[in-house]
Amino acid sequence: MAEVLIVGSMALDSVKTPFGEVERVVGGAAVYAATAASMLAPPRVVGVVGGDFPQEALDFLASRGSDLAGVERVEDGKSFFWSGVYDYALGERETLDTQLNVFGDFNPVLPESYSDSRYCFLANIQPQVQAAVLDQVSDTCFVMCDTMNLWIETEREALEGVLARVDLALLNDAEARQLADTPNLQLAAERIMAMGPRYLVIKKGEYGATLVTADDIFSIPAYPLPNVVDPTGAGDSFAGGMIGFLARQDDCGNMQLRKSMAFGTAIASAAVEDFSLAGLKQFGMPQVAERYNALRDMVRFDAMDHELAQICQSS
Amino acid sequence: MAEVLIVGSMALDSVKTPFGEVERVVGGAAVYAATAASMLAPPRVVGVVGGDFPQEALDFLASRGSDLAGVERVEDGKSFFWSGVYDYALGERETLDTQLNVFGDFNPVLPESYSDSRYCFLANIQPQVQAAVLDQVSDTCFVMCDTMNLWIETEREALEGVLARVDLALLNDAEARQLADTPNLQLAAERIMAMGPRYLVIKKGEYGATLVTADDIFSIPAYPLPNVVDPTGAGDSFAGGMIGFLARQDDCGNMQLRKSMAFGTAIASAAVEDFSLAGLKQFGMPQVAERYNALRDMVRFDAMDHELAQICQSS
Repeated sequence: MAEVLIVGSMALDSVKTPFGEVERVVGGAAVYAATAASMLAPPRVVGVVGGDFPQEALDFLASRGSDLAGVERVEDGKSFFWSGVYDYALGERETLDTQLNVFGDFNPVLPESYSDSRYCFLANIQPQVQAAVLDQVSDTCFVMCDTMNLWIETEREALEGVLARVDLALLNDAEARQLADTPNLQLAAERIMAMGPRYLVIKKGEYGATLVTADDIFSIPAYPLPNVVDPTGAGDSFAGGMIGFLARQDDCGNMQLRKSMAFGTAIASAAVEDFSLAGLKQFGMPQVAERYNALRDMVRFDAMDHELAQICQSS
Repeated sequence: MAEVLIVGSMALDSVKTPFGEVERVVGGAAVYAATAASMLAPPRVVGVVGGDFPQEALDFLASRGSDLAGVERVEDGKSFFWSGVYDYALGERETLDTQLNVFGDFNPVLPESYSDSRYCFLANIQPQVQAAVLDQVSDTCFVMCDTMNLWIETEREALEGVLARVDLALLNDAEARQLADTPNLQLAAERIMAMGPRYLVIKKGEYGATLVTADDIFSIPAYPLPNVVDPTGAGDSFAGGMIGFLARQDDCGNMQLRKSMAFGTAIASAAVEDFSLAGLKQFGMPQVAERYNALRDMVRFDAMDHELAQICQSS
């Protein structure tokens, strides 16, 4: 088992969905990802919080095995704040407010103890910061990065620099289309792979996710849920589950990557069942295993029977 | 092997996509479905065309094994005409013109020779017409129906009457949400199943399709294509492939249904690679088998390893 380096936002979120509304709850990409990853491997978190960030949230992360030596606390500053509202189908969201606060000047200096990290997840954050973190780890084995439309629009060069250095790029479908400047996802994947990453994962929300490698494609559906409450953090929980799984196995072969996506899908399904970390907090390994196995059953189909296969060949 | 009864539109379409534009080409749900189904089982087509419908299109269907005894030709009438334009990502389309023409008074009287049909696909058409066709077959084994937003809005009672009589309802995701009056697809599926069908297939376009049964869920991705040209007819080719497969196997067990969806997915992928029937026409059984097998590889992932499974159980 290896540790997982996770860098990203640690935030307070105000979120409104058709199923409820919460104010200034704990969120942020690094928080979701670390909570998810810690089910399998110890995270090393890199981030910054203000004096308003609840100590109990940090205590919770620590209690689940996260190393918080890389979390800076600016007592007289305010935490990154995001506020958004989701549409009735939870497929689209509108950002109402973003306050960078202490996150705006974030210039992470990794603790010496983090420098041997081999598994890294660079959550959505300015690409220059992602690059600065990569500069401080010398012996990486597998690096995943996320991004967002803002950096594609405003920091494309820096972003492409990061993409050339990571093993796996994680994008949602809209971001992939935007980055590759084509509506066709398969074509977009080919273009993004040409930017450098060995692997690409395209997140499709309720439609699942797709892994593209040089040789093949893997697709996994989302875990079907009749009671999605808040999609915030789903992608980061998915990513955290993936990198946690890979670090635990200490193996990034193709089949391990596929399994890591099933694991991430199972964990992400818990994240969306409640606001903030409430869904993840009550989700244990037996539930992960149950949903992992359910996903396997959900996609299985047999080979064509012998007679039909013969007809196909002889046509 | 059994025959497949297919009722639906036989049309002339004018279609514009970012990749080209065609005028008054052969289309219609029954035409696409019959072409797809005929790769596996002989279709019995029920429809109506005007004097402007190309004889060579009918000859083509017949040459592939379709029985056209149920196709009425109104020499002094005009064929159903649809015109539409797709957005740049091919995910949305706008109807520019619909002219029912001879389709407007369509009141199908099935040939005596069709009355023993056991596998039926009622393509998108007024639900009263779907019901009238069902009234004329007495010994059905498996009936699938499609529909559209127009009938959900204007003919809900008749539509629900049809849904209560079919084995499998086929809807796209927007139709499922509209019919069940909920944005959550899993919840929508539960509500639609309560209307009567034993199975529900939700089509998700480029994101694949999901089969819902009383006991489980099956999801299959779309076949990834870098060169989608025109999505018109994809859903009907998918449905035709499904019902053709089931009729050929003469078996509607759960695994056969899953396999039929993989078969339908493979065929639908050919339909969208060109306008009108051009993609399907050049697609043979060896290509079907190749894509079927590729889809199986695309979704496969292993069980958790033993040690991890044990950890899950003991947590």
